[in-house]
Amino acid sequence: MTDTIISSASKEVVIGFERPFVIIGERINPTGRKQLAAEMAAGDYSRVKADALAQVQAGAQMLDVNAGIPMADEPRILAEAVQLVQSLTNAPLSIDSSIVAALEAGLAVYKGKALVNSVTGEEERLEIVLPLVKKYGAAVVAISNDETGISEDPDVRFEVARKIVNRAADYGIHHSDVVVDPLVMPVGALNDAGRAVFRLVRRLREELKVNTTCGASNFSFGLPNRHGLNASFLSMLIGAGMTSAITNPLHLEEMTAVLGADVAMGHDPNCMRWIQKYREPLATGDDPVGGRRGGREGRRRRAPGS
Amino acid sequence: MTDTIISSASKEVVIGFERPFVIIGERINPTGRKQLAAEMAAGDYSRVKADALAQVQAGAQMLDVNAGIPMADEPRILAEAVQLVQSLTNAPLSIDSSIVAALEAGLAVYKGKALVNSVTGEEERLEIVLPLVKKYGAAVVAISNDETGISEDPDVRFEVARKIVNRAADYGIHHSDVVVDPLVMPVGALNDAGRAVFRLVRRLREELKVNTTCGASNFSFGLPNRHGLNASFLSMLIGAGMTSAITNPLHLEEMTAVLGADVAMGHDPNCMRWIQKYREPLATGDDPVGGRRGGREGRRRRAPGS
Repeated sequence: MTDTIISSASKEVVIGFERPFVIIGERINPTGRKQLAAEMAAGDYSRVKADALAQVQAGAQMLDVNAGIPMADEPRILAEAVQLVQSLTNAPLSIDSSIVAALEAGLAVYKGKALVNSVTGEEERLEIVLPLVKKYGAAVVAISNDETGISEDPDVRFEVARKIVNRAADYGIHHSDVVVDPLVMPVGALNDAGRAVFRLVRRLREELKVNTTCGASNFSFGLPNRHGLNASFLSMLIGAGMTSAITNPLHLEEMTAVLGADVAMGHDPNCMRWIQKYREPLATGDDPVGGRRGGREGRRRRAPGS
Repeated sequence: MTDTIISSASKEVVIGFERPFVIIGERINPTGRKQLAAEMAAGDYSRVKADALAQVQAGAQMLDVNAGIPMADEPRILAEAVQLVQSLTNAPLSIDSSIVAALEAGLAVYKGKALVNSVTGEEERLEIVLPLVKKYGAAVVAISNDETGISEDPDVRFEVARKIVNRAADYGIHHSDVVVDPLVMPVGALNDAGRAVFRLVRRLREELKVNTTCGASNFSFGLPNRHGLNASFLSMLIGAGMTSAITNPLHLEEMTAVLGADVAMGHDPNCMRWIQKYREPLATGDDPVGGRRGGREGRRRRAPGS
């Protein structure tokens, strides 16, 4: 059983084998969002603020913050965004950049124990990112690719993950502070992508004893009804033992799938969270439908097997 | 790898480890449906007909037929219902009764290889149902309870299943013709119900090498948003290796979960079935929204990560 503790100044979130699945909100990321990129580059963080609040409201326990804007001063912008988000919410953050100076700028201003997103198995990355993770007492997302790229062979990806975990240990970083992203491939291109990642998640958990995360929505790339497919896939990932995902908590189908999978894993004691979220309103007072219904009718639950 | 072949006069359905998940439509069952019970008892099969066609249309590969009406002539009614349904559709049937004379009446008129639903681990049931299954060359659903009732301990349920499989072998029935129902408990009452059944499905598959089925909706009994929870649970059951379910194919959330899980298991080659079901209509001609959209706009797929 492995617990990865991430914290802000006033709140701890635990990613763990016997814990509710942790949703890391992915929205604060200018990649592919032109308007957000332009605003952040100009020092306008109103959309960052709105995204932070909306994601926490929707059920994200953590938030990813990325400031990857071409030609912009990424270290300064990332540090400013981290500070702003920490002033708005106590959700712990994942500090996300491919630029080491930006990671360091974010870590320098961060209050609590951050999740650094990310390190790969590339030698050069390992040698600069891991000392930074150690210096700031952070945890780190380990992405299972290396100099040779992303292997389609899940066994190769497993070995890259093992190498990162071992190297982290050399730097004094415990395996509970390494959260492995096994890399989800688009099933439209690779028909075995689902089962490959389920097997990989089980091996990462049983053999390396690490927590796992992923960008789950890549699975449905190019296919119709992406939310429906992502919902099934996320449920199955959780069944296979995945413990967190970097995803959009504003998507209701995926969030319902995650909450349902937590119930099925026994990670929602007495189904309290499920019941609280989905219980039907009483007939009087707070009925959102607004219709007039009799008391018995209004409180009626669906019959078994309905 | 185990394949269970069920057939009608003109169509085979295979329940198998490396096959798409098989939905056995549960609707033709008067239990808890007063009007259907009254009609069937009076020889009016119009609703049976409608239910048969609607379920096949919705994607059920097989249909369950039950005629359990108190005080009625169940053997005659079940036989008539079986003949009617076989005249309407080529979907193979599961012949469902707790009364042995009704099972035999259904089997006697059935064209093809039926699935007998069901035998339990009770000695008396084993001794009368298994010879019938052998006589008609059918397959059988084995429910993992016995004289002592339904154990909450999944290991006990596993041993009951093993006993039935062994006893079937004594009667010359191959384990590929035994489809085990591990019994799904309501998670609202038993917090570990989900993981218990996932483990059980894996053991049944790996150790007894049998196909599995269940009444999945029992899982969500007493909880709100049952369809949402059933959808997650069904996806995870398929991920754990379950190969069929007796359920209502008219429920869209559950059906989407099953189709999505088939994609994730690699059982929907090139995602053809998923794409066919969910592809967005072209902008011209068959756009159900009916709005005027430009050609490029209308054909646009959601962007990755949207």
